[in-house]
Amino acid sequence: MKALLLGLADAVQQAVGQLGGDPGEVVGRGADGGPSTRIDRIAEAAVLRVLEYEGAAIDVLSEEAGLVERGGDRLLVLDPIDGTHNALRGIPAFSVSLAIGRERLSDVEEGLVRDLVSGATYYAAKGQGAHLNGRPIHARPFDPEDSLFSVYLGTHAAPAAAEVASRARRVRNLGAASLDLGLVAKGAADLYYMHSAVHETKLRAVDIAAGVLLVREAGGRVTGLGGEDLDMPLRPDARTDLLAFGDDRVLEAIR
Amino acid sequence: MKALLLGLADAVQQAVGQLGGDPGEVVGRGADGGPSTRIDRIAEAAVLRVLEYEGAAIDVLSEEAGLVERGGDRLLVLDPIDGTHNALRGIPAFSVSLAIGRERLSDVEEGLVRDLVSGATYYAAKGQGAHLNGRPIHARPFDPEDSLFSVYLGTHAAPAAAEVASRARRVRNLGAASLDLGLVAKGAADLYYMHSAVHETKLRAVDIAAGVLLVREAGGRVTGLGGEDLDMPLRPDARTDLLAFGDDRVLEAIR
Repeated sequence: MKALLLGLADAVQQAVGQLGGDPGEVVGRGADGGPSTRIDRIAEAAVLRVLEYEGAAIDVLSEEAGLVERGGDRLLVLDPIDGTHNALRGIPAFSVSLAIGRERLSDVEEGLVRDLVSGATYYAAKGQGAHLNGRPIHARPFDPEDSLFSVYLGTHAAPAAAEVASRARRVRNLGAASLDLGLVAKGAADLYYMHSAVHETKLRAVDIAAGVLLVREAGGRVTGLGGEDLDMPLRPDARTDLLAFGDDRVLEAIR
Repeated sequence: MKALLLGLADAVQQAVGQLGGDPGEVVGRGADGGPSTRIDRIAEAAVLRVLEYEGAAIDVLSEEAGLVERGGDRLLVLDPIDGTHNALRGIPAFSVSLAIGRERLSDVEEGLVRDLVSGATYYAAKGQGAHLNGRPIHARPFDPEDSLFSVYLGTHAAPAAAEVASRARRVRNLGAASLDLGLVAKGAADLYYMHSAVHETKLRAVDIAAGVLLVREAGGRVTGLGGEDLDMPLRPDARTDLLAFGDDRVLEAIR
């Protein structure tokens, strides 16, 4: 269903673009709470419109609309805007995240993430590797002297997160899970560490369904905090912490 | 000298683009140490070529070449690629930073930062405000419930940096000082906090000459760790820590 996913990403990119030029800048102008709903809803509506037009028999799990039954045997797991807060404030890191699955994270078959600032497209299909703009990407072998971690920090982060950040030579954080997972998949980051102390800010299936497949198909691993391979139901209420990394030696560096 | 600065930024953008398409992705492919020099040198050479062609009588202080005397009464303070490490690894945050000054940070007259991923252009002239893509930008009034700090973290950061990060509702870090300062100037971030425990990773004049003017012209402040308005000589060997913020109430939040 790659063609469908690409068409949906294009539709979101176009809808966001019509909000006024360069999204990294212009969308950020109206950051007063109201437009948050607006940009997410506009993006979601664009996806649903294309699904109708294409007559695609697929159910939808989306951040805004929840579960939309459309008589399908498969489920489109959608975050129409991942990084809404970034988009509204003008931080240039937000995306649309699309995945095709059924019941659980582990049965996701395809994932596509479109970076809505640069326009770059990540795509993975189970067993077929991960790609960025059509070229294969791979997670990174770990070099402790040159480590770069993406770590979720701030008042809602667990204290362990600050400790993990202190172990990396460099720390970055984009604040959009699908893009942070993309950094691990393409070998830009060694680790994406998300450990929230607050249930509401943990990650949802819509945030990570595509990104987790990207990392795994790029040769990396995604686990829970206990080290088990991450799985979760594709449901609106499920939340999780996670670690995503390219090389198990990262685990020694943060022990 | 806005036209000249724009021409120089265009030249760098074009030179980087010729390295192979989408810079946020393709430049990152060759991250083996060698290309680091290459991308910086290519960008710097592009600037020097335009200066020659235009017959611009201006000296240059650049990250790569150091001080280049060209018989001018003013100094172009240049970081041809701010965020080289990002560019090489594929983190989509790097820029060219250009400023016109004489002796010290406080006498910088103009600054221009081009985001080489999104193509956005920040520009400020002393006493004339700060602009992003031609539109005025302003630093942000502080809302403690919705704080977003950009904090330099990792093994080289001072312990105080982790404490500052723990006070923000959200933490981001782009790892390119000119862009992190741009986030404060446009009101995307409340604070950029750079406090390195290692002399070599503190900020240089070439990193911040343009960005500091951007923040100040956007109504924000840039200080040293002691709270004094930041100043430093425009010299290759000078290094500094800094705080940049839009609203003094940020200082209470991190006290």
